[in-house]
Amino acid sequence: MKKGLFITFEGTDGSGKTTQIKLLEEYMSTKGREVVLSREPGGTRVSEIIRDIILEPENKEIVPLTEMILYAASRAQHVAEVIEPAVNNGKIVICDRYVDSSYAYQGGGRGVDLKIIADVNRIAINGTVPDITFFLDIDPEISIRRRINSTGADRIEQEKLDFHRRVYDGYKKLSILYPDRIKTIDATKSVEEISSQINEYIDELF
Amino acid sequence: MKKGLFITFEGTDGSGKTTQIKLLEEYMSTKGREVVLSREPGGTRVSEIIRDIILEPENKEIVPLTEMILYAASRAQHVAEVIEPAVNNGKIVICDRYVDSSYAYQGGGRGVDLKIIADVNRIAINGTVPDITFFLDIDPEISIRRRINSTGADRIEQEKLDFHRRVYDGYKKLSILYPDRIKTIDATKSVEEISSQINEYIDELF
Repeated sequence: MKKGLFITFEGTDGSGKTTQIKLLEEYMSTKGREVVLSREPGGTRVSEIIRDIILEPENKEIVPLTEMILYAASRAQHVAEVIEPAVNNGKIVICDRYVDSSYAYQGGGRGVDLKIIADVNRIAINGTVPDITFFLDIDPEISIRRRINSTGADRIEQEKLDFHRRVYDGYKKLSILYPDRIKTIDATKSVEEISSQINEYIDELF
Repeated sequence: MKKGLFITFEGTDGSGKTTQIKLLEEYMSTKGREVVLSREPGGTRVSEIIRDIILEPENKEIVPLTEMILYAASRAQHVAEVIEPAVNNGKIVICDRYVDSSYAYQGGGRGVDLKIIADVNRIAINGTVPDITFFLDIDPEISIRRRINSTGADRIEQEKLDFHRRVYDGYKKLSILYPDRIKTIDATKSVEEISSQINEYIDELF
């Protein structure tokens, strides 16, 4: 096996992505694979600067279209600098959020046309599609409370529950549209149960 | 006449856009029209923050695709916040650079595929095409020296002469492709001559 693997995690904030990414990283390391962890928006120095613009609570005037294109710009840099070179060098890239977040948040959440999101992101990712995506499926009412209680809320997290409900519905639709790539994981289960389910999917890939 | 007018100025750095924009603003004001001056990249608070990322000489790792998408994000916000509302309110918007700069700089200069630039920008500008565009045509060898001697050079201006030559060629091609919209002005003429030629074109529009 020469080529690496590109794995993404998706879900509403507070769905447990961070915990599961760490566990998967450990699992892949025990298998002797070199793992690159990354996150969106961000993942490179320049992408993090773009991330700061997007998430800054003061930038309330950003219109949905600008927000969507900024995410795509951040993503283009992330793909070119980190994801593509790592995967081409046989590494396992595990990324917290990727294109599906744009469909769920800017499409489902903000109402930006999905066709437009697809057009801009097809250009931004330049062919780098995840090999597998884990959607951590949990009612946003539970996940968002969990998240906001544990940390401060950024500009996206401050949105009303109704917004996060539309994001969640967006994810549900994506998981139905792309069942081969997107694996839906019941995120109300225990950390251990979720982790072994993810590991099983990964084992199947090798 | 209810709807306003959207006028853009294009050309390599140092081609005299700033001077001509000021003169056109004065001319329009004497005609009693309300003028909104703007510039790209920038034009809104958020767009200026994006502009800073693009032009910061330290951000050398920005790949051409990211640069192109960042310009489009800045432009989307500029259109939504400033240009579209002003034109719809009957104002004259004069903008220093717009979509043609993306074709000339990211396309001609950096080699980004023109089709890709068109796709992303069609989405970003959401139908807001200039009524008239003035291309200030001057050999880049002359204009760039003029500019760099007068001010410090930003990340784009620091590019080699060969880059600015490709940008210039990009503008030439655009002016041939869109002769109805893009008016080519000989920018080696005197400030007064250029200004009266521009005013004549504007008078024809009214």
